[in-house]
Amino acid sequence: MSAYQQLESIFKKTHHLNHLHAIVSWDEAVMMPPGGGDARAEALGTLSSISHETITQPQTADWLEQANQDNSLNNWQKANLKWMAKKYKNATCIPAELVRQITQASITCEQAWRQMKADNNWKDFAPLLEKTLNLVKESAAIRADSFKQSPYDILIDDFSSEINQAIIDPIFTELKATLPAITQQAQERQKQISIIKPTGKFPIDKQRELSKALMQAIGFDFNRGRLDVSHHPFCGGVSEDVRITTRYNENEFISSAMAICHETGHARYEQDLPTEWLHQPVGQIHSMALHESQSLLIEMQACRSREFMDFLAPLAQQFFGEQEAINPDNLYHLYTHVKPDFIRVDADELTYPLHVILRYELEKQLIEGNLLVKELPAAWNELMQKYLGINPKDNYALGVMQDVHWPSGAFGYFPAYTLGAIIAAQLFAKAKIEYPDIPQQLAQGNFSHLYEWLKNNVHSKASSLSTQELLTQATGNPLSAENYLQHIQKRYID
Amino acid sequence: MSAYQQLESIFKKTHHLNHLHAIVSWDEAVMMPPGGGDARAEALGTLSSISHETITQPQTADWLEQANQDNSLNNWQKANLKWMAKKYKNATCIPAELVRQITQASITCEQAWRQMKADNNWKDFAPLLEKTLNLVKESAAIRADSFKQSPYDILIDDFSSEINQAIIDPIFTELKATLPAITQQAQERQKQISIIKPTGKFPIDKQRELSKALMQAIGFDFNRGRLDVSHHPFCGGVSEDVRITTRYNENEFISSAMAICHETGHARYEQDLPTEWLHQPVGQIHSMALHESQSLLIEMQACRSREFMDFLAPLAQQFFGEQEAINPDNLYHLYTHVKPDFIRVDADELTYPLHVILRYELEKQLIEGNLLVKELPAAWNELMQKYLGINPKDNYALGVMQDVHWPSGAFGYFPAYTLGAIIAAQLFAKAKIEYPDIPQQLAQGNFSHLYEWLKNNVHSKASSLSTQELLTQATGNPLSAENYLQHIQKRYID
Repeated sequence: MSAYQQLESIFKKTHHLNHLHAIVSWDEAVMMPPGGGDARAEALGTLSSISHETITQPQTADWLEQANQDNSLNNWQKANLKWMAKKYKNATCIPAELVRQITQASITCEQAWRQMKADNNWKDFAPLLEKTLNLVKESAAIRADSFKQSPYDILIDDFSSEINQAIIDPIFTELKATLPAITQQAQERQKQISIIKPTGKFPIDKQRELSKALMQAIGFDFNRGRLDVSHHPFCGGVSEDVRITTRYNENEFISSAMAICHETGHARYEQDLPTEWLHQPVGQIHSMALHESQSLLIEMQACRSREFMDFLAPLAQQFFGEQEAINPDNLYHLYTHVKPDFIRVDADELTYPLHVILRYELEKQLIEGNLLVKELPAAWNELMQKYLGINPKDNYALGVMQDVHWPSGAFGYFPAYTLGAIIAAQLFAKAKIEYPDIPQQLAQGNFSHLYEWLKNNVHSKASSLSTQELLTQATGNPLSAENYLQHIQKRYID
Repeated sequence: MSAYQQLESIFKKTHHLNHLHAIVSWDEAVMMPPGGGDARAEALGTLSSISHETITQPQTADWLEQANQDNSLNNWQKANLKWMAKKYKNATCIPAELVRQITQASITCEQAWRQMKADNNWKDFAPLLEKTLNLVKESAAIRADSFKQSPYDILIDDFSSEINQAIIDPIFTELKATLPAITQQAQERQKQISIIKPTGKFPIDKQRELSKALMQAIGFDFNRGRLDVSHHPFCGGVSEDVRITTRYNENEFISSAMAICHETGHARYEQDLPTEWLHQPVGQIHSMALHESQSLLIEMQACRSREFMDFLAPLAQQFFGEQEAINPDNLYHLYTHVKPDFIRVDADELTYPLHVILRYELEKQLIEGNLLVKELPAAWNELMQKYLGINPKDNYALGVMQDVHWPSGAFGYFPAYTLGAIIAAQLFAKAKIEYPDIPQQLAQGNFSHLYEWLKNNVHSKASSLSTQELLTQATGNPLSAENYLQHIQKRYID
């Protein structure tokens, strides 16, 4: 075997371990009874250590060096080698014991968070969060040294590869400068529209059927995936077996229907990845900014469009019967209604980026040591007041304790949501230029041209290109908020 | 760390890997969509290899030798060391590659079996079974050489430690000599009784509620376990998170109610194991004969007793309404009805051992090379005719393809069912001597004295004793069919 092939076999092994990790983590969120938590955390800690040992085995460095001299590699293999080297460097910086501690602390913290959030119990949660944060900081500091980047850039890169504060800051500055005013204008404009809320009970089994019908329309492959219920909607599992979840409230179906569209956007990206590269780093998705772009493209650009409501309204009527509120125009008003509120996952398209920017600014300070965990609730409330004009006070479940990210150790993830929204607008604008009938197709629940374009320009590339290269090849431009701001202007102001 | 402590840390690691294996295997049977199968098989193959490498790492042999000289070990530690040595010897005999092949072949075979059984497709199934069998034979032959035992004894020992053909043969011979006649007598006797089948629809959500009420009565801890639906009922997961499954048929509730009692018997054994030893081999259950004894004690001895029907009948009425058939006497007749039939898992208490003996005799020949896979259907049908007087002919789903065991590579498991039934009778007889009110308690759905005795005499021992030692300490006698035959006589003939 060549050095490159040796490396492929190492990373195939870690791919199998990632498979187990993904399924067991899905199980933890969807199936596991509370009493199983400690044993699960320990088992996952051991799994992370083994993954780490596998990548950092003594021969890897030599093989990486030899493979770098290998002139026979094609472009995908070269890109794969780049990912391997990056993963190796990331892994060798950090002692296996620290990796194990991070995994275990974050699982324990996340498990405790579920109950403590329900109990609005910041006091007992804070020390667990602090422990997780400190371990994440320790890992980031070690790697910052080795990669010659700032610790927070290292963490952003963990989730959105090759994205950093230098790329994010000007974009977020532009959004902070424009969104509050647009939000106000949109709120003024919507005063002239009367919106009707659908009333009655929307039985959960009917909502599940509607969910499946939407997934079918968007093209989810049920032979390689499932739909279940969890605390927060998410897309998990593995590309060959994608697990999406949602939650239902029998008093309304509006939220769960759109959560399904969002998660199905994630799922199709996974399901469309090129099979022959799935076992290798280059075949996986390393940019959560791109991943979120695929869910937000489906949710925000396609499924919240006025055109899609022509498909959604009659579909919803099939399951819930006819009522005045379930008509295309009214649904569109509901799905584009703007109202600053406390919860990020329930936020509208205009205020969502402000929720993200708040978290971005706070986690940056936490990682840099300029903010302590005990100071976090006050800092949170101050920024909520500043950006959204509201204050959750000591209702932590509506404030600093609302998200799973920090308790699970995912510092650096949040920017991906708003970058994803921006990329989604950029890709969708280009797709519509190449296939002008996309809006008419959406009105019929037909996603075929949209996905033809996405498969060719995004999904089939997996991680063979950087986010900037991919965007440039697909749209002619690197990351830019231009199409996003045009989209916002058109939907909420014109 | 002492050598013994080093070994404990190795086996703690494999315990964590077993945890992942158990959860992911449960997922495969209960949750996984068919398209996820290939990737899952590969990931589990890798996990098995890692487990194998962990146990067989170079230092293990030295540590075992040093720990053997360690005079400070207590009895549990000594027993633990014995299990470690046995696992090490088993693992070092076999190349890691063979372990990986067995795991992968059996997962592939089991996955294919699900569909091929539904299609009655023996032709395409046979080569997959043959591949699995050959790999199992290869592993058994290597270990037989090293342990100086016959290959089939090695496989029996894999599931029911320290049980072998020398123990089984006289017992099975006795059963073959008595059961067919008792079956005939019982069938004669029951002609005089008129049995009424409950009629109507028994909605699945109501059956689920009944199942949970039964689990509650038997003492299942829902904080450390779940109930779900699968193709075949089973008990999986880990001691801290026990997953039992059943299947429902809305035309009758009789089968699912008793399947639940059976699986809850397994589950309580797992949930009652001593917490401080769970991470080590001595803290786990290595005898499926004992495991089956706990499910069959609950199902056959306790829950099919006339006394328990006084609890079950009014409980079932709560969920399904009153009808003539749901009365204690009639339920008892239903639950003790005897009728030779094709399917083992649906068999009555009297013919079940004959199903097991048939499989025991066939798999012994398969492993010894005296029977080929292609000859299996004819041999199966011949023995069915001989022992039960019926012949499934070329309906393989009613014959040789009915069980998951062989496709999943579990040759040597079957004797555990009938040994379990015998141990169950032996333990129950003794428990009733020490707590004579157990039958009256069961009539009220109260399992407290029964479980007090079982916890003290069985569950708290985990694997610190051999099956024969445990039985002798608990009942005064080693394994014997005496109580079992008395029980059969009393229930079906007197």
